[in-house]
Amino acid sequence: MSATEQIRELLDKRIEAIRLHDATAANAALDPSIVAYEVAGPLQVPAQQATDSTATQVWLDSFEEGPFVEMDHLSIHADGAVAYCYSLNRLRGRASGGREIDVTMRVTLGLRRTQAGWAILHGHTSLPR
Amino acid sequence: MSATEQIRELLDKRIEAIRLHDATAANAALDPSIVAYEVAGPLQVPAQQATDSTATQVWLDSFEEGPFVEMDHLSIHADGAVAYCYSLNRLRGRASGGREIDVTMRVTLGLRRTQAGWAILHGHTSLPR
Repeated sequence: MSATEQIRELLDKRIEAIRLHDATAANAALDPSIVAYEVAGPLQVPAQQATDSTATQVWLDSFEEGPFVEMDHLSIHADGAVAYCYSLNRLRGRASGGREIDVTMRVTLGLRRTQAGWAILHGHTSLPR
Repeated sequence: MSATEQIRELLDKRIEAIRLHDATAANAALDPSIVAYEVAGPLQVPAQQATDSTATQVWLDSFEEGPFVEMDHLSIHADGAVAYCYSLNRLRGRASGGREIDVTMRVTLGLRRTQAGWAILHGHTSLPR
């Protein structure tokens, strides 16, 4: 499998884990030292918080239906042990209480390959102002 | 010079060109097919617009003083012909009319190396909500 295919598989597995509310599997893609820029402040989320599966589980379980994530215009660039990718990610679902959610975010990921495979070392997710 | 040093030099030159209001030199770092996610909407800025030095010049000349850019916590990851980097960029200056500007943004860049050197193929700049 090419590096591009391996990374595509990693992202697809993460999206599937999110749909299944499996926080541990979703966060397995994240490097423990990830530098995370999230949609909501602060400027940078500490790695320990970004990889905290208990917090991820709370977020996932705030959805009655979904979250369903679709990556549009995904572009992956890899060489050796370094890769980055970017896409417009549409996130849909229904929150507890019935509120419908349908938002498209910009997502850029930086990855590195270790003996265990590819891991997400940097994540940048945002909405335009 | 290592790839990391080459990229650092590219970024420093771009920041210096911005300070000098030299739009053409600033945009020389950009790949013509750049995929740009900017602070303000739309979700994605067309490459032709992102690399338009006339528009960049108008933006630069809207500053009476600056813009001065400082990269904090810059991290560069490169292998072969692929690299990415991320930093918290503080942008300061005084707009025409006297308004003081001091804002810190999250910036992630994806780069590729061609025979002409490194170029920015993807840029993601945002403020948290």
